[in-house]
Amino acid sequence: MSKCRVCRGPAIIDLPRHNAHFCAEHLQQLCRRQVERAIADHSMLAPGERVLVAVSGGKDSLALWDLLLELGYEADGLYIGLGIGAYSDESGAFAQDFAAARGLMLKRIDLRADLGYDVPTAARATGRVPCSACGLSKRRLFDDAARDGGYCAIATGHNLDDEAAVLLGNTLRWDVDYLARQMPVLPAGDGFPRKIKPLVRLTERETAAWCITRGIDYQVEECPMAAGNRHLGYKATLNELEARSPGTKAAFYLGFLERMGPVLADHRASETAALSTCSRCGAPTTSDVCAFCRLVETAAAHEPVPVEVLTARSRRR
Amino acid sequence: MSKCRVCRGPAIIDLPRHNAHFCAEHLQQLCRRQVERAIADHSMLAPGERVLVAVSGGKDSLALWDLLLELGYEADGLYIGLGIGAYSDESGAFAQDFAAARGLMLKRIDLRADLGYDVPTAARATGRVPCSACGLSKRRLFDDAARDGGYCAIATGHNLDDEAAVLLGNTLRWDVDYLARQMPVLPAGDGFPRKIKPLVRLTERETAAWCITRGIDYQVEECPMAAGNRHLGYKATLNELEARSPGTKAAFYLGFLERMGPVLADHRASETAALSTCSRCGAPTTSDVCAFCRLVETAAAHEPVPVEVLTARSRRR
Repeated sequence: MSKCRVCRGPAIIDLPRHNAHFCAEHLQQLCRRQVERAIADHSMLAPGERVLVAVSGGKDSLALWDLLLELGYEADGLYIGLGIGAYSDESGAFAQDFAAARGLMLKRIDLRADLGYDVPTAARATGRVPCSACGLSKRRLFDDAARDGGYCAIATGHNLDDEAAVLLGNTLRWDVDYLARQMPVLPAGDGFPRKIKPLVRLTERETAAWCITRGIDYQVEECPMAAGNRHLGYKATLNELEARSPGTKAAFYLGFLERMGPVLADHRASETAALSTCSRCGAPTTSDVCAFCRLVETAAAHEPVPVEVLTARSRRR
Repeated sequence: MSKCRVCRGPAIIDLPRHNAHFCAEHLQQLCRRQVERAIADHSMLAPGERVLVAVSGGKDSLALWDLLLELGYEADGLYIGLGIGAYSDESGAFAQDFAAARGLMLKRIDLRADLGYDVPTAARATGRVPCSACGLSKRRLFDDAARDGGYCAIATGHNLDDEAAVLLGNTLRWDVDYLARQMPVLPAGDGFPRKIKPLVRLTERETAAWCITRGIDYQVEECPMAAGNRHLGYKATLNELEARSPGTKAAFYLGFLERMGPVLADHRASETAALSTCSRCGAPTTSDVCAFCRLVETAAAHEPVPVEVLTARSRRR
């Protein structure tokens, strides 16, 4: 029987990249310390700052909310109903149950009820992949909610696997603008609130272990609209490299932050494009009408498309 | 039956990244043009410059020599006998036959006969991977031969697959110094001759097709000492990404040159470490005795190790 590296008690998980096993208590200690370190290394939050957590009902966002509260931050949640059929109904229930059981404040926005569209319909109406309309909607609604609620920052549950996969995609294309922006904290500016990713030092296996050992129920199913996308392919590639050589994924992402961050800093500084103001909503934009206003206009005018239509199509591909 | 994109005649090869098929004549045209473009884009050679080709007897180095002659350069060859058993005997014969059939000048150096060691023995004596002693020996002997022979540059047969795999390894570790140096031309300086890689725009499938359609016999077998090394693992990873999305490999490597080259230029400029002179041989080095003199001393003093000992050990791993 394997023993915890810290206390020599019975272990519940092995983490090859740390070359060690851990019991529940010391797995949690590891998670807390990695999040504290990410927050400190990148000046994500000062003590006492209020933070708005982007809550999806999955393991990462619920672990993030739980960890930020554990570390003493004042953290409220915002859940956005994306209208992705039963997947959205279930994820919303997980988020709601987590908040209710702990007496936390969870704001809710429903794309269909509040804005007149949903993600499957937006995907069909714009002719783009669903992740495009989803990301655009979430970014805007979180920005607005953080500003209106007086939060210092928006925290998202992107973990090491997510960030390493995005980094691999940006690196394979050497998209220098995207690489320069792929930092775990984006400072406030141009009317946008600060964005932080406190879980970048934790793998998805570790955030899942946090939830399980803390008794947090979460949505296990992956979003049906994301099946087969490139991001999941990059995750698979990194998992193969990690299996051959444990630690590859963390070295790839954390080495990028440490050694390429400074190299790309000048590029970031020279990149500030002139922003104007959206003629409809007043948000900062590079064109006359911002991408979000254009999305809402196109998607809300389209006849609702049930999620099954798009997922059936993607299965046929 | 597939047709050549250029002449609509019967095709002999399909190149998914070009989304086209080619006949032998136009495959050769494509190869010539890609090499001309690499030489021009990176100012590798001026017309009439004499170049020393690093010839191993494999498809890449023989294709390189053939292509440089086709393009009108004065190109001699240098073959280094590495003492890797039957593999070295055969590769030397392929190099010799190529040169003899065309009346070309091929210089030969034999590590065992001329320097008192071979690669398997050097690997055992230094306790490092064979590729380490092999690369160090080749770099030094090519440098010396190019300088002594008055050549303007040393040309090596590194192809797109090789360079993309090295790039992936350097990128996964974000080794910024190595990334900054990973350019297809290294200018002369500090006593080192210019180094050029004219095949960086051709895949190994394309250099093999060049040899086959030109009637060049080459060593097909891979070096037995390289089996299972990391470089081959990175090649496999890139081949999987390429199969999912043709063009990924070329976009990765050529995009790096185009977009990261400028970003890394400042890093390259600031990187020139102070070099002193080896107290034994006078070559530029960062220590008192250069790495090559230390290798020769250690390896030549060691009892010869037959190649079978090392490859049998690596097979058991």
